[in-house]
Formats: sequence, C-alpha cells, structure tokens
Amino acid sequence: MFQVNIGMIGGGTVGSGVFHHLQNNRALLQSRLGLKISLSRVAVKALDEPRPYPIPRSVMSTDWTAVVNDPGIQVIIELVGGTTLARTMILTALRLGKPVITANKALLFEHGPELFAAARQFGTNLYYEASVAGGIPIIKALREGFVGNRITHLYGIVNGTCNYILTRMKLEGLDFAPTLKEAQRLGYAEADPSLDIGGSDSEHKIGILASLAHGFWVAPGEMHVEGIRSIGRADMEFAAKLGYTIKLLGVVKLVSGDKGGKRTVIQASVYPALIPNAHVLASVNYVYNAVLVRGDVVGDTLFYGRGAGKDATASAVLSDIADAALDLKHGSRGRIPPFVARGPAGRVLPIREVVSRYYLRLDVVDKPGTLAKISSILAALRIGISSVIQPEGHEGESVPLILMCHDAPNAAMEAALAKIGRLPVVKSTPVMLRVEDFG
Amino acid sequence: MFQVNIGMIGGGTVGSGVFHHLQNNRALLQSRLGLKISLSRVAVKALDEPRPYPIPRSVMSTDWTAVVNDPGIQVIIELVGGTTLARTMILTALRLGKPVITANKALLFEHGPELFAAARQFGTNLYYEASVAGGIPIIKALREGFVGNRITHLYGIVNGTCNYILTRMKLEGLDFAPTLKEAQRLGYAEADPSLDIGGSDSEHKIGILASLAHGFWVAPGEMHVEGIRSIGRADMEFAAKLGYTIKLLGVVKLVSGDKGGKRTVIQASVYPALIPNAHVLASVNYVYNAVLVRGDVVGDTLFYGRGAGKDATASAVLSDIADAALDLKHGSRGRIPPFVARGPAGRVLPIREVVSRYYLRLDVVDKPGTLAKISSILAALRIGISSVIQPEGHEGESVPLILMCHDAPNAAMEAALAKIGRLPVVKSTPVMLRVEDFG
Repeated sequence: MFQVNIGMIGGGTVGSGVFHHLQNNRALLQSRLGLKISLSRVAVKALDEPRPYPIPRSVMSTDWTAVVNDPGIQVIIELVGGTTLARTMILTALRLGKPVITANKALLFEHGPELFAAARQFGTNLYYEASVAGGIPIIKALREGFVGNRITHLYGIVNGTCNYILTRMKLEGLDFAPTLKEAQRLGYAEADPSLDIGGSDSEHKIGILASLAHGFWVAPGEMHVEGIRSIGRADMEFAAKLGYTIKLLGVVKLVSGDKGGKRTVIQASVYPALIPNAHVLASVNYVYNAVLVRGDVVGDTLFYGRGAGKDATASAVLSDIADAALDLKHGSRGRIPPFVARGPAGRVLPIREVVSRYYLRLDVVDKPGTLAKISSILAALRIGISSVIQPEGHEGESVPLILMCHDAPNAAMEAALAKIGRLPVVKSTPVMLRVEDFG
Repeated sequence: MFQVNIGMIGGGTVGSGVFHHLQNNRALLQSRLGLKISLSRVAVKALDEPRPYPIPRSVMSTDWTAVVNDPGIQVIIELVGGTTLARTMILTALRLGKPVITANKALLFEHGPELFAAARQFGTNLYYEASVAGGIPIIKALREGFVGNRITHLYGIVNGTCNYILTRMKLEGLDFAPTLKEAQRLGYAEADPSLDIGGSDSEHKIGILASLAHGFWVAPGEMHVEGIRSIGRADMEFAAKLGYTIKLLGVVKLVSGDKGGKRTVIQASVYPALIPNAHVLASVNYVYNAVLVRGDVVGDTLFYGRGAGKDATASAVLSDIADAALDLKHGSRGRIPPFVARGPAGRVLPIREVVSRYYLRLDVVDKPGTLAKISSILAALRIGISSVIQPEGHEGESVPLILMCHDAPNAAMEAALAKIGRLPVVKSTPVMLRVEDFG
C-alpha cells in the first residue's frame, strides 16, 4: 500500500492536536484514503514545553532542518507561526520539492505570492485549509465547491477572541476592558491580545479569502482594518434597541467585475458592524466563526464552526494531509495550485470610496439647536438620517445622541465627523460604526 | 491548453441551468482551472420543451446514445432523473470509461453500489455533489473536509418543499392542506408532491450522507422514514408554546463504533422533529437547506444554502465538472472514488431500538382520572413525563392534552401509544413527534 511519511515542525497547541487526532483516527483516515500515513518526526522548540496532548519523545527533535531534509519525509507540516523562521522553513521544504501544509495565515497574507511562486517553481504544492476559520472547510468551498461562481459578496466572522468578547458584552451587558480580562483569564484571549482585538488576525484571514475569491493577491496595507477596542457597552445597548448586534465583520464585495479587460474592483475590509438581529450572522456567538458566501450561481450559503483551537484546526490539517497524500499517490501535485491569479490584477477600493450605512454615537450637550447643527452638517455632505435616538436628559447636561444614517461614501462621513467633532456642543470624539444589512 | 468536452443528458430545469451558467462563467471557470471546457452536446426528451434558460438548437438532439457514444465526448452529465433509463445511461457511459456527473439522488440511493462498482471496474469515476442539498458542498465537506473525523452526529433539513410548507405553517398559523396547495401554486411543490412530503426525497439524501459518513451503503428500506402530512396547525402552536419549531429532520447518529472488529451501528432516519427555537437549525426557513455535522475532531459545523432549483444545483454540477476535468487533466480519475466501504459492513438500528424524547398530542375527554390513566400507562413502560399542557376546557368536552416525555426507546412509546389509543377517553389517534435537542 502507498505510504506517505510526514514531518511536522511545531508541537504546540495545534501541532500536538494534529499528532493526537492523527494517532486516534489513523485507521479511519487510511481506510478512507486507501493509503498509509506516518507522522514520524516532529521538530519542536523545546522537548519539555507543556502541550495539551502529549507527543512521544521518540518522534521529537529540536532540529527542524533535520526533519525537512530527511529524505524519508515526503510532506512537511509547518505549525510554528510567525513570519520569519516559518518562511525559511516553508521555502526550504518547497525547494526540496516537498509539499507543505501550513496554518500560518500571517505568513500567507504577507508572503503568499513568494511561497506560491516557489511551490510552482519546484513542482510541488502548498496546502492551507487550516489558515482560515479553523475547522470550517472554507478554502475548499471557495476554490472547489464554488469554482463555477463569481463571488459577489463574502462576509466573515473569523476571529474567535473578538467574537467571544463581543458576545459576552452583548449578552451580559459588560464593558470592553473587563470582558477582555475575563477572556484572557479563561484562555480565549492571548496575554498580548493586540493581533486579535486590533483586527490584524481577521485582516489576514479575510485577505486570503478575498484573494481566492477574486483572483488577485490582496497586498498587506490595501485593506481598511478596524478592531473592537472602541466598542462600548453603550453601543451594544443602543444597537440592541435599534434591532442590531455588533460583530467584527470581514466584508468583501465585488464592486465592478473584470469584464471587457477592465480590472476587478472590490471592497475588502474588516470593521465592527451593526448586523440586523434577524440575520443568521447575528446569532454566531462566542468562539464560533461563520462565513457567508454569495455566488452569482449558488446564491447565499453559510458555513459555521469552530474557528480555532487544537482540535478544529487539526481537523483542517488532517484534510490537507489527505489532499497532499492523494496528490502524491496519483502524481497530481499541481491539481489545485495554491493560488491562481487571473486577468488584469484587481484592486481594493480605498475605504473613502466605499459606500456604507452608519451608526453614530455622539456625546452632546442637551440644549436647543444641537440636533439642528449636527443634521445640517450631515445634510450639507448629502448624508441622510434614517433614525435618531436621544434618551431624555436634563437641559444643559451631556447626553448621548444616536443617529442612523443612510448610504454614503466613507469620505463624506469622515468629513462630517471632523466637522461634528469640532462643534462646542459635542463633548467627546464621535463613535462611528458601519451598518451591514447584507442587501 | 487541455480541453474537456462534455455531453449532457437532460435539458430541463437543472440541465438548462447548467448550460446557462457554464456559458456565463466559462471564462472564469477556465482561468481558475487552467483548462478549456466545452459543453457541446445536450440530449433532451423534446426539442420544444419549455425550459427556464434557453439551450441553442444546434447543440441539442433527442438521441442520448449518440451523445454518450460520441468519441469526442469525454464526460457525461446525467440530469434526467428517475431510476430506470437514467441507470442505463450512466452504466453505458461508465462502461465506455467516461466519468459521469449526476444529481440523481434516488438512483444513487437505490443503485449506488452497482454504479460505484461499474466506475471502479471501468477505471473511471462518478461525481454526485449535486445529489444532496443543491448548492451546499456537503459531499465534498464530508469526504474531503472532514476526512479525518469520525462523524458522530449529522442532522439535515434537506427537502425545500417540506421546509417551505412547515415554515409558512409556523409563521402564518396555517394548516397543512392549504399550505401545500399554495406551495404548489407558487411552484415550490410538485403537482404530485408525495416524494417530498412523504419523506422519500429526504430519505435518499440522508441515506447518501449517512453512507458517506459511516463507510457502508445504507440500503433502501433500512431507514425509518416519516413525512409531514400528519403535522397540524395545533402541533405547530403547541410546539411554539413549549419553545420548539417543527422541522422535517434527517438524523444520523453513531450508536456504537467500529472498534475491535465490531460492526458500526448507526441511527439513520427521517422524521418531523421538535427543535429548540434557540438552535440554529430552527431558523432555517422556507426553501433553504442546512446540514449540521458533528465530528470527533472538528466539533459542530453547519452548512446552509439553497438545496434545489436550476441555479443552486447547477453550482454543484459546475463543481463536479471542475473535479472531473482536473482528474482527466492530471490522470487522477480514481483520486477520490465515488464510495469507499470500510471495515465490516455496519447496520442501521431498527427504529424500535432508537431512544428519543417525545411530544404527544392527544384528544381526550376532559374528566377526572384521564391524566392518571394515561400517565400510568407511560409509567408502566418506564416513560417519564417532563411536562404537560392541558388548555382549560369544559368537563365532558374533548380537549387537547400535550405531553412531553423523557428519553425512551421507540418500542416502548409504540406500545404506550397502542394502549393509550384504546382508552375510551382518548377520542382520536394520538399524534407522536420526536424531540431533538442535539445533545
């Protein structure tokens, strides 16, 4: 029977999960695939690191180069993370013609084209189902399941830490800072949570999905990215009153297509957005992830599952092991290349040109003429107001003023906010969130 | 550039959808795959049939054998439906070594093993993503995305007609018969709706998913199947009062595994079930389908989308076209065989042995001792009652009595219902529905 020998670099949370579940389900996997799989060498940073599942000493070493260069190893799994050493590891394996499996979204996002070119040059492949949304097979769905579709819209809740924090803030009426602390205590947020709550982790994942959907690699810096630090308990409460839930949302929209030799133009961004409570994405809670894909043939589809962790991510790595092993067995390494660029390279629309609906929360002095001043600034920039909430207060006191605004370009809203922020009746920096109604 | 020539048999709703969308998105599909695709011949029943999208006369003929036997055609798509002529068509193509793409769930369910054996014998493949849940890539997810998982639970809402009827009954407080008529008028139900509302269509789809998940082909007749004819407006209303929604649900559970050489035992059934309103499956409305897959590695995942129709089904056929074309290009026809049996063949647990929770609706005479008689029958069969609703009535009149019962084998409940039905105070055949809490 055909046998595939695998070497893994990284024996931490995900790595030990892959080792554990491969041992557990090896017979099942082998009988489904009709081949043998051996994960015989694991390179780790330190033999004694604590890990959620044990890895036997006999397969571990601290020398990754020995694993990659071992002529008996045909496939390399990279699970160390980071964008420097991991890049070297992957390039080293690809140059030896060895297919690589990775969960490294940051590296892919930043250096994807270099890695894809190396895979092509050395006649091998790079598999990365585990890089986005953990156990949800969204890469396979986009590249294979929806290969006949023009993807017009893609929305993703792809960061479990942010979604956990926002869910608890909403359901328990909590503020951001204590919820983050609680998430850290429970292990749902890192000691340094900036990559998650600042939006970069979502940026990497949404960047990869946008690139796959639209056939050009979205470069770092091209997407507008906001995190969730500015979301207050008050915003959660006012959003709820208006019938909305706040989620950190990746938004990818086809603005204009690639017909007639013109460049594809897309919106690709990550920001907290108000989602109507009735929409299924508003019910994606805690650490769960979900991706909504709208194709011109298939219509709306949704994928939901655990987006991270030792088990869900291992499931995706096992799926890539299967694909890599089958491609080796059948001599079809380039069957589905890591990335296919097509047509003239597209571009990401600057956020200033993106049209959205808005939620504004202002801290204003409750006195006659306040609303008139603010609404005339919006009107001058052609921004329509769809609804207003002003809780009853006492004249002369500072009160919140909530405005929901109709579709307008972000540049107009920015200009309006700059003017509004300078009004003496406005007491602190206005909070602006976008509203997504999935129309 | 590598070119694949495709012949299609069937130019009706789905067939014309495939033709239309392939024309529309051909350039996109070709650039993603790096090969050329031509759908050059379409065999139809009658050239003048009305079809939702036009097919040019020049590619149509009424002779399917000429299409299958054309030496220039490498791949055959079968979209005629039915289990007799379609079987001959597919076997003819497979015997010529031509890969076949089909959406024919009834044929697969009834004759799967014969078709799979023919594909293997003649060194070719059979692709059937479009057979279950239309545009949702659930076959690919099960066979590839979750290949490393033991699937412990799978729940599916896979019949759009039933889900449309149940959704309208619930949301508008309607009865079954007028809702069915309305669904027929709007084209959401066939003139002869028995295949849908009787549960057979769901049986075919759930049978295919159960077989793929558990590695043995579930034979026709092995699954317990109930349709939705018996659901009344009253059941919808009482379920809602109790916090539940009624859905026609496919249920596949791993009862005992295949460890130690023992046979896998599964529950595989289709019946209307009460689902807690808070569960995401309760929100899958109208013609949408959804499948929840729980794997031992990945945890809970959910897939949602349109389950039928000219467009969503075409999306799945396009995905199979891509797989078939890539397998031809790379010489990897058997890379993912249509079905892999493993271990000793499993078996489906008879419904009598399946343990469920229950909802009972009885028509009883409102007089002292009625509840005592009924509850003592249940108690004698060791069936616990978890809650009771008896709307206020007038003594001596017939009133509904709703009982929610704890976990018990279906055999015990059957015995109880037979006894309860014979009580003089019980005025009509008891309604029994199962309750699924996804635990």
